[in-house]
Amino acid sequence: MTLHPAVAPFAPLLGTWRGKGAGEYPSIAPFEYTEELVFEAVHPSKPVIAYRHKTARCLDGAPLHSETGFLRPGVVCHWAVAQSTGVAEASVGSWAPDEGVLLLSSSSLGGADKVVAVERQYTVRDGQLSYVISMATTSSPLLPHLRASLTRDTC
Amino acid sequence: MTLHPAVAPFAPLLGTWRGKGAGEYPSIAPFEYTEELVFEAVHPSKPVIAYRHKTARCLDGAPLHSETGFLRPGVVCHWAVAQSTGVAEASVGSWAPDEGVLLLSSSSLGGADKVVAVERQYTVRDGQLSYVISMATTSSPLLPHLRASLTRDTC
Repeated sequence: MTLHPAVAPFAPLLGTWRGKGAGEYPSIAPFEYTEELVFEAVHPSKPVIAYRHKTARCLDGAPLHSETGFLRPGVVCHWAVAQSTGVAEASVGSWAPDEGVLLLSSSSLGGADKVVAVERQYTVRDGQLSYVISMATTSSPLLPHLRASLTRDTC
Repeated sequence: MTLHPAVAPFAPLLGTWRGKGAGEYPSIAPFEYTEELVFEAVHPSKPVIAYRHKTARCLDGAPLHSETGFLRPGVVCHWAVAQSTGVAEASVGSWAPDEGVLLLSSSSLGGADKVVAVERQYTVRDGQLSYVISMATTSSPLLPHLRASLTRDTC
């Protein structure tokens, strides 16, 4: 698909990515998960990238978390994502194409009980998409919560 | 699919719905659109309903707006939805099964420039899903913005 000019610089992010991740936080036991993550251009006429992600338990594939929303690319990127926990996350950030790094910091977390800030760093390098998602809560400062390393689906 | 007990009372909403809608607001010219709207149970183990909606121009099918997110059913329903405009909407509301009415009022509109409140009323009656979405902005009080009447896809 032809990419909207605003989307084209973000081409390295686009695709269906699969792999494994791990979670940790002071208030929970560490855990692992499998994941499918998609960044997808919506339409050549739209400066919008659709995002969706779902994770599952390694043991039996039972669904864990899911998220879905949109990245609006630009010098300043805007991120609107709904989480299956009921959190509506708005973030702003930037894409550094030379480093392959998308960095997003939350400006609003509607519907959140305890989470007060989320920071996401997605890095595309050597054919892999890796991320670190950090979280601050009413009782913890900003700490890494989720890390994953995913490979693009080439089917 | 077996429905989670929290999802079961919302069964009348579930499905893929298609039809036409119309938009109006003091600041814009009236317009019409075609629409596909989905309410879908995520998994029997999850008290979550996935929601997605996309609209297109009647003339040529060019994409207009899209939204995606989750409804967490309960006596108090929680709604987290990302809009392709970059707005992350968190709402709370209620489902009246006898009337077939889901009513949602925004508690947070992250990433919004001008919109300060959104109210959604979805009604399932006589095999149709109709809705009225009202909006307040920095320059207008809460006024109806979008109305549609959709039919469930039976394929």
